[in-house]
This record gives sequence, structure tokens and C-alpha cells, in this order.
Amino acid sequence: MARPDGRTADQLRPVTLTRHWSIHPEGSVLVEFGNTRVLCTASVTEGVPRWRKGSGLGWVTAEYSMLPRATNTRSDRESVKGKVGGRTQEISRLIGRSLRACIDLKALGENSIVLDCDVLQADGGTRTASITGAYVALHDAVTWLAGRKALAGKVDKVLHTSIQAISVGMFDGAARLDLDYEEDVAAAVDMNVVCTAEGDFVEVQGTGENGVFRRAELDAMLDLGVLGCAELAALQQKALAA
Amino acid sequence: MARPDGRTADQLRPVTLTRHWSIHPEGSVLVEFGNTRVLCTASVTEGVPRWRKGSGLGWVTAEYSMLPRATNTRSDRESVKGKVGGRTQEISRLIGRSLRACIDLKALGENSIVLDCDVLQADGGTRTASITGAYVALHDAVTWLAGRKALAGKVDKVLHTSIQAISVGMFDGAARLDLDYEEDVAAAVDMNVVCTAEGDFVEVQGTGENGVFRRAELDAMLDLGVLGCAELAALQQKALAA
Amino acid sequence: MARPDGRTADQLRPVTLTRHWSIHPEGSVLVEFGNTRVLCTASVTEGVPRWRKGSGLGWVTAEYSMLPRATNTRSDRESVKGKVGGRTQEISRLIGRSLRACIDLKALGENSIVLDCDVLQADGGTRTASITGAYVALHDAVTWLAGRKALAGKVDKVLHTSIQAISVGMFDGAARLDLDYEEDVAAAVDMNVVCTAEGDFVEVQGTGENGVFRRAELDAMLDLGVLGCAELAALQQKALAA
Amino acid sequence: MARPDGRTADQLRPVTLTRHWSIHPEGSVLVEFGNTRVLCTASVTEGVPRWRKGSGLGWVTAEYSMLPRATNTRSDRESVKGKVGGRTQEISRLIGRSLRACIDLKALGENSIVLDCDVLQADGGTRTASITGAYVALHDAVTWLAGRKALAGKVDKVLHTSIQAISVGMFDGAARLDLDYEEDVAAAVDMNVVCTAEGDFVEVQGTGENGVFRRAELDAMLDLGVLGCAELAALQQKALAA
Amino acid sequence: MARPDGRTADQLRPVTLTRHWSIHPEGSVLVEFGNTRVLCTASVTEGVPRWRKGSGLGWVTAEYSMLPRATNTRSDRESVKGKVGGRTQEISRLIGRSLRACIDLKALGENSIVLDCDVLQADGGTRTASITGAYVALHDAVTWLAGRKALAGKVDKVLHTSIQAISVGMFDGAARLDLDYEEDVAAAVDMNVVCTAEGDFVEVQGTGENGVFRRAELDAMLDLGVLGCAELAALQQKALAA
Amino acid sequence: MARPDGRTADQLRPVTLTRHWSIHPEGSVLVEFGNTRVLCTASVTEGVPRWRKGSGLGWVTAEYSMLPRATNTRSDRESVKGKVGGRTQEISRLIGRSLRACIDLKALGENSIVLDCDVLQADGGTRTASITGAYVALHDAVTWLAGRKALAGKVDKVLHTSIQAISVGMFDGAARLDLDYEEDVAAAVDMNVVCTAEGDFVEVQGTGENGVFRRAELDAMLDLGVLGCAELAALQQKALAA
Repeated sequence: MARPDGRTADQLRPVTLTRHWSIHPEGSVLVEFGNTRVLCTASVTEGVPRWRKGSGLGWVTAEYSMLPRATNTRSDRESVKGKVGGRTQEISRLIGRSLRACIDLKALGENSIVLDCDVLQADGGTRTASITGAYVALHDAVTWLAGRKALAGKVDKVLHTSIQAISVGMFDGAARLDLDYEEDVAAAVDMNVVCTAEGDFVEVQGTGENGVFRRAELDAMLDLGVLGCAELAALQQKALAA
Repeated sequence: MARPDGRTADQLRPVTLTRHWSIHPEGSVLVEFGNTRVLCTASVTEGVPRWRKGSGLGWVTAEYSMLPRATNTRSDRESVKGKVGGRTQEISRLIGRSLRACIDLKALGENSIVLDCDVLQADGGTRTASITGAYVALHDAVTWLAGRKALAGKVDKVLHTSIQAISVGMFDGAARLDLDYEEDVAAAVDMNVVCTAEGDFVEVQGTGENGVFRRAELDAMLDLGVLGCAELAALQQKALAA
Repeated sequence: MARPDGRTADQLRPVTLTRHWSIHPEGSVLVEFGNTRVLCTASVTEGVPRWRKGSGLGWVTAEYSMLPRATNTRSDRESVKGKVGGRTQEISRLIGRSLRACIDLKALGENSIVLDCDVLQADGGTRTASITGAYVALHDAVTWLAGRKALAGKVDKVLHTSIQAISVGMFDGAARLDLDYEEDVAAAVDMNVVCTAEGDFVEVQGTGENGVFRRAELDAMLDLGVLGCAELAALQQKALAA
Repeated sequence: MARPDGRTADQLRPVTLTRHWSIHPEGSVLVEFGNTRVLCTASVTEGVPRWRKGSGLGWVTAEYSMLPRATNTRSDRESVKGKVGGRTQEISRLIGRSLRACIDLKALGENSIVLDCDVLQADGGTRTASITGAYVALHDAVTWLAGRKALAGKVDKVLHTSIQAISVGMFDGAARLDLDYEEDVAAAVDMNVVCTAEGDFVEVQGTGENGVFRRAELDAMLDLGVLGCAELAALQQKALAA
Repeated sequence: MARPDGRTADQLRPVTLTRHWSIHPEGSVLVEFGNTRVLCTASVTEGVPRWRKGSGLGWVTAEYSMLPRATNTRSDRESVKGKVGGRTQEISRLIGRSLRACIDLKALGENSIVLDCDVLQADGGTRTASITGAYVALHDAVTWLAGRKALAGKVDKVLHTSIQAISVGMFDGAARLDLDYEEDVAAAVDMNVVCTAEGDFVEVQGTGENGVFRRAELDAMLDLGVLGCAELAALQQKALAA
Repeated sequence: MARPDGRTADQLRPVTLTRHWSIHPEGSVLVEFGNTRVLCTASVTEGVPRWRKGSGLGWVTAEYSMLPRATNTRSDRESVKGKVGGRTQEISRLIGRSLRACIDLKALGENSIVLDCDVLQADGGTRTASITGAYVALHDAVTWLAGRKALAGKVDKVLHTSIQAISVGMFDGAARLDLDYEEDVAAAVDMNVVCTAEGDFVEVQGTGENGVFRRAELDAMLDLGVLGCAELAALQQKALAA
């Protein structure tokens, strides 16, 4: 069975990282993986929440959300429903945890950064695109703080590595990289892999609701995920060098 | 006192209406008034809410929202706060009311259309940009229904006119069209004018929290608002003809 | 078509302003416009919210609400639904904005006043009756503060004018003043006008959900609204002199 | 220690029951016990909630609430806080339970009645005033249903008795009837007694947060409560005969 | 009609009080009345809420809750519904009020104790079992504070008596002690009695939703309730001595 | 560094599975992993939610929660806060997804099962204990349905395998099985592994918030997790055979 868009099993969709998409935020990146389109912004506040004052440590959190018609059928707004759904919270927590893995909160000093990842259009892989784009926005925000001499350490001390994420899935016993929505729904098993620039794992989440998976399958998915992340790390670096 | 961007008092900011910005919605328009940028989508559901079934009438509503970092400083998400604020509800109601003024719900037949106006970047005039863009998205959605032969009437019966909106304000006794954020904050009085293509009023809202206003000032603002709306009507028509 | 209660087009319903209706609040007025009956109370707290401390400025806000059976059919309580509806918030904001137009927050000094407008019985024009009654309650509260020597300025410096509001509507091309519920539902267009004692506008809101309106109609409604407000200003003055 | 208003220990405050206070509800009574003033309305819906359809039984519930400035200092609105407090719910449940004790739901037929008790001014005893007033409003609503031939039984079958309630408290070993706010705060023990016209108990709630109570004290409070209820039953009967 | 489990009318179900059921809380008691099983924990915080600081007084509150499947059919979680129901709040308030009757808040000093009563299995009498068990947990928590020399007074000054509670009901004119669920549903009238070790009343709540009750019946229920409480006081003392 | 309780790296804590702990639920298991103690109940409803009617498929969901004092310091109740936290939702979703991996919803027929996992005492590994215990409760509930001849298939068709879960963590480069709370906090990396009786993976979640992890470390953790799950599968089987 061929991939819907004719890609090879180990091929990413076209990925673009557009920096400075918005004028207001300290970091702002429109990230696209094929038709998936997420606006990642990094908002800096000098100072930290009250319970953290005087600790010398900074603070980084993330919030993920989807526009109501980012998807094929419209979803009700969580603001109108009056509560944030489980999926949204789970992804927000994952993004925050992943990005905190590359940041030295002591070197950041008592500054707070909120990473907002708003999905403008969804076609699979929104959480991994969010993480990949949020890293670039975070880098711009840290550089902005450096420009104001507001960091406790240097930029490359604050951000000692980069963070990327990609999805992988199993189809008829073969692993595929970077699933679009159609593949995501059809996959027996799917996994999200979050890596550092060095290829170390930050987070690995594999789920088999439509079927279980063997160790060999898990290994094949991990191999592919690590390859995809390395490619994304190069794209991030290129975007930041532009 | 000159305008921040050098415009004349009766000059609109550069306005663009980009149709088909997203792939999923039946109508989707990115509207820009200078730096103000709103994604307007129209989502069609065949059928109406239960309490309206069998009436032969359609249903049109609107929801407005801002991304947390659409503005200069980050706002907390209404989904996280667990309630929709007064300003948001007020604008959602205004957009819905304004657009219902151009639609014949009987000719629409038992179809529902939700207009989502999500502010991606704010620089004044987000509610009037939303109304102006939402009309174009609504037109595309009605045309989509016509293509599926799902309307009770023809497109130009369903939409018997077009709807535009613009803000106006008073500065040192003189009226100005299409305020940006800096002007909006500084204006003694400001007014939102919603018109039809024929130049009739749909809604007029003038507020003088920083000062009251005389009849002559009100008249000057109305004159300017009607002119601005006529210009926007032409831009909408051009966009729909493209 | 005659008016339901036989009034002329420019005639107000019988208006009464009963001061000191309740024993606890610093200002308390039962305002009646025909069958519309609103209890307006002004509650004073010496001091201001924390974020305003040390500014030397006072604070005035308003909250509007309807008893569940103020209307012809019972509405669910917003406390039970767990959220304040859009209409309620919109009117609360309008009342607060209108009353702040007559008050000098510096002369008020660091005192807070909450204006509560609770509709005990509704028959059209509840928001304009609320504004008209709230002004009188506010005046009593400011006088109470003066009696305790708690103002930064004199009473007539704190309240440099009075505020009134009235509704107007169009019927078969003719304007009518002070619509009752039956007329409000039937009107093609209706407008709320908020004025100062000098006849300047504080707020003008015209809506044409059942039809659009021309400039000449808008002018006719504004003329009538200004006349009605002048009459209400005299009634307020008389009530305060009693 | 004398009573603040000079009453004897077994004397009620002046009680008034004003029927038809509002024009919209099927039953509407302004009940006053001294300065305590509660608007009790009874709202009829023909039909019952879905889960009760076809049972042949009617449905009676109650909701209690206080205006924010009914008391000496202003309370935040429960609608604004987004939740109904424990005290409010407790009293709503008590009123509903008490009134259901006098009604034959089978004879009522499949009709629903909501009793709203809104405290306009509070000076102690608001829950017992609510019960006493709500009975009269309920009687008017049942009579209204009878007038429309919508009852399954006759009025005096539907309402086989009347319901009254009064508070009692202990002061220096002596029981007092119908406490005002000042006494309520000072009482070592207080009790609410709900009775039928026959002097039977519907509900007895005695609380000693400021001290415990002996059997003899409980007996004295019950004696006084029964006497007070009998007096109220006569006042209700007189009001209904007017 | 005999009792479902063959008890005599004045006989308690088997009651057990298991102290130290959990390892974390300062006081923790599993209380069982037949099949009713409640975990009562007392959590100590040194210090009091901000508004109470410097008063020299401590603070005791209670929260009651049921596991979703503590009952015969599953109830939705109040956390998922987003609000605490009226019954839950009513019982939480009753438990807190009852326990505060035995504690000298001045002798407690500026310490806070939260009593959590979580019903693991329900078979009637959960609120009275909660009160009875919470007293023992409270005693352990106060003793724990004494061990840390954190009390302002001695343990027997802080807790000057013990608190017990039991339910009673009327069946065919005869009173029965400690109703199980089946009896609770069938009783015409039921009453909860809360006493001190000396047999004084702290709280008396009698309700006749399925019928009213006469003075003689009330007297019979009170007699039985006092007897039951005395028996429970002995069991508490024995548990605390173990 | 030795383990706090002296276990070897690959040793589980003492695990007990007590069936029929409660009298009401169709399945009810108290699961203990050392000091971690979770009450897992399975509640059966014949029928499925409305949107699933007529599909021939059953429905299984899970809800996880902690008692406020299950932990070392008391947490506020989510019911009181008015919303379910992100961690709670994430774990509820994980439990539901894991258990659905072993159930054939077609063979279950149109029956619904809710798995409630309430943590009575927490000492690390509450989510994995919940999954392990919930499987046994689910088995009892399916058997109960079989006894009522309410299944579309046989028990061993409905439950084609068993589900177990365990945590693993890295300490100084070595993997450890079944972390208690103290170890969980100290681990550089930790992972939750969910398996079937056949040793296939259902879910794998590894997180390195305190540090990243290499492929070799991931492999060591997976090896240990699979061993631990096999041991748990045997314990489940033994409990179900008892």
C-alpha cells in the first residue's frame, strides 16, 4: 500500500519554518509539515511567578490549542465549553516538558517564557510540528532577552541543544515517517519521538489502540524517528541561520 | 497631529482579502487591515439545531476570539480561564447580528453556518475587519451549498446585499477613518459603523468613554464611516470576482 | 398603528425614582418606567482594588441582572448555569461605561463604588432604566462619602454632570420614544441613547436586526432620544432635591 | 437582655404578605418579616421534565438567592463566581422539600412549578420567610392552573394543608421567636421549625455552633416554634382570602 | 415489620473504628457502620488562612465526598461535572459545624485541620458515620500537634468533649436506630442527631418528606438518638485508648 | 546507591490483588504495590451511549482520581476546584486506552463498562497499579455479564488477553523496576510499559524531564518492563483463579 502523497516510507513532508510571522511576540514561527500549519509564539515576561521569586530560576510553559475549523469538521471551542479537554492538556504538557529539556533555567535567570502553539490547519502530526516550531520561537525569544542583557547566562548556555519531534507509524509490518491525518487514522500503532540535536531521546510515546506491537516493530519505529529528528534539526539550524 | 502611518483622515489602511486560505472550511478568508490579521472561516452543517427543525429556516451565528499573543502583551486563554469574557461575547454577538442582516434565512433553507473570526494579529479594528472578512467567507459557503444544490433559493436571493464595517474616531474635533491600535487608544470618541452595499446602516455604535460627543461630531463620523464602507464593498466584490 | 398604551410618539411612560428603597446600601433607588422595575443600589467600599492602590483614583463598576421571573416566561438563573450570558455582560459593561462618563475618578479619591441593577420586572427598556436609576443611586453614594469626609473633591466636582438613557425605535417610518416590550419586539430598528445633562452623547447604539435604517431615520431617532433624556434629567434632579 | 426592637420573647415581627406584586408570574408574593423582604414567585410550566413524562405526577422545586446588596456588606454574585454556594443550595433544597410536604403531586397532574425566593433585603429569617411566602405564591399558582382546568385534582386536594416556618433561638436560657439578624448572630443556639396548618412538623433543624443545647431547651424552642407557625398560618389564610 | 438484618429497634449495626488506616495523614480512621465504610482523614497545616493570621485562633473545616461507585448504581464524579452538588456541600458543612463544637480554636493555636470524609461504600448513615469517625481522626491530629509542641493549649483543653452522630427513623409509629439504606428509603421521617459525650445536642435535623411528624414521634426519635450517641462515645473512647 | 526498601533492581514490591473488596460494583479490586493502594471498580450498564446505539459494539472507559490526602501533603479536590487537572485526564485516558486493547467490543455487545481507579494511598506507580488492578475488575464484570447471558460472545472471546503495566527508571546508568515515590522523584528518566499476557506492547511512554536517554538505556528499561509485566500477568491469573 503506497503513501497517499507518494512519499517513501522514510520521507518527511515538505517542512517550512517561517520566522517573524507576527509582529508582537518575542519569538514567532509559522511551522508547516505539508498541510499541517501551526503558529508558535514565544512570549517573554521579565520576572517569574510569585512562588518562584528569588530562586534564580526561569520558567517555561506551553499551551496548545486548535482553531475550531482547523480540522475537517468544526469542533466546539474549549472556551465556550468552559473547560480544556484532556487531549489539549496532554499535548500542552508534552510540549512544555519537551522544551524544558533543552533549557538551562538557571542560565535563563528569573524570566518566564510561554510557548503558544495554535493549530491553524491540521493534517496529522500537530503535536510534533508544535514542538519543532516552538524550539525555533524559543530560540528567538532567548536571543531577544540576550539583546536586552536580561539573561543570567549566554544564549548557547541557556539553550544547550535543540529539540525536534516527529511521528512514526506501522503499516502492514513496515514503519513510516511523519504520518498525515489519513495515515494517522489508519495506522495500527503510532509513536511520537522527541529528540535532541545529539540524537538522544527526550520523550518516546508509542500507542497501539488498534493493535499491539512487538519489540522489533518498536525498534524500527525508533530508528526512523531518530532519522527524521536529525533532518528536522538541520532545518531548524538553517532557519535560525537565515 | 498627523496619523502614525501618514494616512489622510479619510484613508483606509491597505486592505487584503485572501480567499481559500485554509483547505478544510467551506469558506475561509484571511482579512488584513494593515497589521490587523483575522482568519474568517464559514463552516456549513446541513440541518439546523433541534429546536428549529421543520421551520424551513436556516441559522447563522458567529464566534470571535483572539489568539493569546495577537496583542502586544499576552492575554490568558479564555479556555484556560474557563469562561468567555464580556468583550468577546459582545463582539461575537455583533458579528452574528450584522451578517444575519444580509441573509434570507428562508432562502438558505435548513442549513447552519458558523462564522469563526480568529484574530491572529491585532492592531485596532479587529471587530470591523472580522465583519468585512466574514461576509466574503459566508458568500463562499453559500456558493458551496449552491454547488451541492442544497439551498432553498438562489445565491443572490440568499445573500441580497453585502455587509461591511469600519471604525471611525474623533481627534481634536476632526474625524478619522479606520483607526489603528495607537489611534484607538488615543481617540476621545470612537464609533463602529456597519453598512450594506446600498449604504444603509445595519448597526451604529458610538462610545465616548474618554469624553462625550456632540451631534455635529456624530454626523462627521457617520459620513466618514459610510464612505469607508462603500470602499470596502468594492474590495469585497473584487475579491469575490477573482 | 397606535401605541399599545395610547401614548404619543414622543411621550415617556410614567417614570418614578424612589430613593432609599433599601436600608443597607449607601445609595438605593427603585426606578420604574411603566411596568419596568429595576432596583439600583450603589455599594461603597473605602479603598480600591490592589492593582489601583496609590494611584489616587477611584473605581466605579456596574453589574446588571434579571430575576428569573422578571419576564413573561421564566429564565434559568445564570448562577445555576454557572456562567454569565453575553447579553448580561454587554449591558453591565454599558452601564459601567455610561456612569463613568459623569464621574471624576480623581475627585472621588481611592473609593470604589459598585452599581447593582437588578431587574425585578421587565417590560422593555431595562438597560436604559438601569442607567437612569443608577445615576441617582450613585449620587446618593457620593453624597454619603462626602458626609464622611472621604472624598478627594466636592460632590459637584466628583459628579460634573448627570447621565440619562432612553430607547427609541422606528415603526412604519416614524420614530417612537421609550418602547415597551411589545414595541421593542415589533420595531424594525431600535436605538439606545445615553446623554449628559447638557445633551451631549455618551453612547449611541442603533441596531437593525429586523431591517436596515437610513440616515434620515437615524436622525429622527437621535432627535427623539435627546428630548427624552432631557426630560429624564429633570426627573432625576427633582428626585434628588426631594 | 431585652430584644433590639422591644418585642416580647414570643412575639413575631410585623409580617405582611403582598400578593400579585409582579405582573408576569402565576403566583407572586412579597413577604416581609420586619426588615426582611423576599420576593416569592411561582412559575408554572404545563408538562414535566422528560424523565418524569407519563408518570401522571407533577413536579415542584425551589430556588433561593440573595441580591448582592440585600445585606449590610455587598456579596459577590454567584453568577459571576460561576458557582452556587453551599448555603444557597442548602436553603433551596429546604424550601423545595418543605413545600412538597403540602402538595399532592398526583392531583397536581403533569405540571411543573418552580418557586423562586429572591431576598431583596435581609434582616434574619430569610429562609423561613421564604417558605412562608412561597406557600402563598404556590397556592395562587395552583388556583391559576385550576382556572385553566389543568389540574388532575381539585385545589384543596392538590394542597391538602398549608406550610409555615419560623426561627427560634436561645438567649441566656430563654427561647425567643423570630430572630432578626442581630439576634441571629448573638444566639447560642438557633432552630428553624417548619409546620403544617395542623401543627405537625415538616422539618426541624437545630444548630448549636456557639454552644450545645439540652433537651429542655430544645423543648422550649419547639413549643415557641409551633406557636409562631400557627400565627403565620392564620396570616396566610387571611392573605389568601383577601 | 422486622428490620432487614434482624436488629432490635434500638440496636446499632456493628461499628468499627480502624485508626492509622493510611500512612500519610496526621489522623486517619476507617469507620464502618455495617456495610457503610468511610475513610476519615485529618490533615494538619501549621498556620491559618491569610485572613485569619494574627488572630491566635485555629481553623477546622470538613469535606465530604462519595466515590462514584460507593452506591448501588454509579454516580458521575463531581469533578467531571465541574461542580459540587447541593447534597455534598450540605453534608460537608454539617460535618465541619459538628466538629467545631468540640474544639477550642484558641487552644488549638494558629493551626489548620481539614477533615476529609470519603465514602468508600455506602449503605445508609454516611453523614453520621463521617462525623463519628472524623472525631477520632481529629483527636489523632491534635495529639500529633501536641507531640510537636505546636498547640497553644493541652489536648484535653483543645478537645473538651467528643462528638458522635447517629440517624433515627419512624416506621409504623415506632422509632428505629441507625437506619441502613433500605430502611432510610422506606422511613416516613428521619432524623440525624449529633451529640457531645455529655449527651448535649450539637445538631438536630428531622425531615418528613414522606410524611409529617408529631411531637411524640420527635421525642421518641430524640430519646433513641441520645442513647445511640452514648454507645458511640464509648466506642470512640475505646478506639482512642487502644 | 541501594534501593530505599532493599529490593534488587529487577524486583517488584509486594503486590496484592483483593477481589470483591466492595459489595456494589460488578467488579471491584483493591490493588496494592507496596504502599500504593488503589480501589479499582468496574461498573456495568446494559446499553451504550446514544450515539453508539445500534452499532452492535460495547463501550469501555476509565476515570482515575486521587483522594485529597492519598499523598504526603493534601491536594485540593478537583470537584472543589471545578475542573479536572491535566495529569488526571492524561492518566484516565491512558487507563482507558490500555484496557480497550484487550477487549473485543463486538463480542462485548451493547454494554458499557466504566473503570474507576481511585487512589486511596499513593507511593509511586499509581497509574500502572491502576491498569493492573482494573484488568482484574474488568474480568469480573465481563464474567458477571456472562452470568446474565448479556454478552454477544464468550468471556475469553471478549477478553482475548490480559493487560499489565509497570514503571521502570534509570539510576546512574542502571535500570530499576517498579519505582516507589522516592525513586520516582529521583530518577533521571522514567518509563511506563503496558503489555499483554503475550509480552506485546500496548503502550510505551518514556520521559526524561531530568535528563535525556540513549537507545541502550531505553532498551534496558524495556527489557525490565517486559519482565515485570510477565510477573504481574501471573499474579492476575492467580487472583482470578482463586
